[in-house]
Amino acid sequence: MPIQQSMLEAIEEELKRQVARLDQPRMQPFHQMLTYHMGWIGEGAGPNAAGKRIRPLLTLLVTASCFIGDVVGGEVGRGNWLHAVSAAAAIELIHNFSLAHDDIQDNSELRRGRKTLWVKWGSPMAINAGDALFVIANQSILDLIGRYPAEIVVRAATVLNNSCLDLTRGQYLDMSYEERTDLTMEDYWPMIGGKTSSLLSACTQIGAILGYAQEPQIEAFRLFGYHLGLAFQVQDDILGIWGDENLTGKSAASDLVEGKNSLPVLYGLEQNGRFAERWRKGPISLAEVSEVAALLEAEGGKAFAEKMSAEETQKALGCLQEANPRGEAGQAILQLANMLLKRNQ
Amino acid sequence: MPIQQSMLEAIEEELKRQVARLDQPRMQPFHQMLTYHMGWIGEGAGPNAAGKRIRPLLTLLVTASCFIGDVVGGEVGRGNWLHAVSAAAAIELIHNFSLAHDDIQDNSELRRGRKTLWVKWGSPMAINAGDALFVIANQSILDLIGRYPAEIVVRAATVLNNSCLDLTRGQYLDMSYEERTDLTMEDYWPMIGGKTSSLLSACTQIGAILGYAQEPQIEAFRLFGYHLGLAFQVQDDILGIWGDENLTGKSAASDLVEGKNSLPVLYGLEQNGRFAERWRKGPISLAEVSEVAALLEAEGGKAFAEKMSAEETQKALGCLQEANPRGEAGQAILQLANMLLKRNQ
Repeated sequence: MPIQQSMLEAIEEELKRQVARLDQPRMQPFHQMLTYHMGWIGEGAGPNAAGKRIRPLLTLLVTASCFIGDVVGGEVGRGNWLHAVSAAAAIELIHNFSLAHDDIQDNSELRRGRKTLWVKWGSPMAINAGDALFVIANQSILDLIGRYPAEIVVRAATVLNNSCLDLTRGQYLDMSYEERTDLTMEDYWPMIGGKTSSLLSACTQIGAILGYAQEPQIEAFRLFGYHLGLAFQVQDDILGIWGDENLTGKSAASDLVEGKNSLPVLYGLEQNGRFAERWRKGPISLAEVSEVAALLEAEGGKAFAEKMSAEETQKALGCLQEANPRGEAGQAILQLANMLLKRNQ
Repeated sequence: MPIQQSMLEAIEEELKRQVARLDQPRMQPFHQMLTYHMGWIGEGAGPNAAGKRIRPLLTLLVTASCFIGDVVGGEVGRGNWLHAVSAAAAIELIHNFSLAHDDIQDNSELRRGRKTLWVKWGSPMAINAGDALFVIANQSILDLIGRYPAEIVVRAATVLNNSCLDLTRGQYLDMSYEERTDLTMEDYWPMIGGKTSSLLSACTQIGAILGYAQEPQIEAFRLFGYHLGLAFQVQDDILGIWGDENLTGKSAASDLVEGKNSLPVLYGLEQNGRFAERWRKGPISLAEVSEVAALLEAEGGKAFAEKMSAEETQKALGCLQEANPRGEAGQAILQLANMLLKRNQ
């Protein structure tokens, strides 16, 4: 079995074990809210509902890619990636906590084609379910104790919580931008740095810490995750306007209709051309979407975003090379990065 | 200066230092949401808005009461309570995180006489501000590192997060009870155990852990906090129906009007008398309140709750005696417990 497959199975098992903290008398409906949100039960349950578990997979791959060098006589020197699985689960739980609250904040009725938590159980219950996911994430990372020295557990938990505060910063910026009409591209990077890159850099940093990597390697992995996140988000912005909806599984033009302050849009606004003129007039209807997308492309919005994505991709790959991940896991990290960054090909 | 006063000042300073993680460029309005909620800025800011900081005070008093025996020749042996202040701040931040989300869930427009977060900034921002308080609480408790061995930091953080999951359990029960008409007194204790007692027992347990107490003393302190919480909540239920609103600062009869499933009410429902008959007919108006309260009192609801509160108080004081807190801090714990449990006198 390829290493990714073993990891994904271990991640899913650990996630279920952690969420089962609520599998208790009186708590069954509460437990079900979480298992539904994680994609395990209810209508449409299954891998599509669960998502790709990219973050925990990346975490464990990084850990494993640091351990390879420690294999002596067929035995892994200081441990194996399975010891890090509760940290990987913690990161996926943080991701899912943020999705649960995002869906309430954005008034989103569907996620991965299924009704969102707040639509099914109401906002008060959905807020609480998100809070529980967040708590269980913290419990999961503290569960490293016994498998890792306490100093390393505290460090990993600190990195995770620092990235969580970045998530709330990014979410604050995203929400505050909704009311603003004076945004520039300078406003873009702190937002996606918080919303997307910070948790991806926590994955790679924590993975390296749990792989007992040296400090320069930990830092290279951290930066790899950070730039990977930026490149990925810019790609996502491009697909949100010009993507093939059959490939991405969402309405290709929805970002323009939703008025999302994506990088191409902010670029277009700075050009102060016909796109900016139209954007500032108010919401774009579905009927106008292809025309406005063409306008933005003609004014350079797509090309600029592609250039930025390519630059961040190069930075990410440069950092990955410096981090020098080894073995089958190292190869798998490169594959995963390529998969994330070339989704439209 | 009495020890409580020194502690309250240190707590407030530490809280401000922790929340200042958001005192950054671009984040000023976000930072203000938190400082407003903590009672430091905005209309009505000050001690009344901030609340009594009972939980962090209790934490530090317990820590200090364990240290006293370690004083040798005027020097504290293994440290002093100031080393535990970031854990005390963490608990107060958890309390404030839960208030911020509770106010959204309960649709409460006022807290301590001031507009709630969601009323001032909208629910999406208030959810995010609550999330940030939770993250900062975790960062605060991890900040013990350097002042305590990593094993102790992990243990304290684990106790805190276990109590946070209890908070979400209690909140789930509380919300799910709103729709139920078949509640009994058996349903009461798990709810307030989660909503009130769990965090108070985390205060005393963490306080003792950070005071390097022995295991039996830690357990006695934990149980003291737990029973203190139960006694306090039952008291609060009694005041919510029969309290003098001038003393408690809230409308004396509001719990009956709000349909709160308090202990006296659940007792009354089990009697299946005239109170139960009236309660099941639907919402109680302000005009009926004193009549319904008198009915419930006549059917034994008040006396029963007073008996339960007295029993829990006795258990709490028994555990406290077993925990044997020492010195000025030990005296202060007893005073604090008496203050909490005799608010109507």
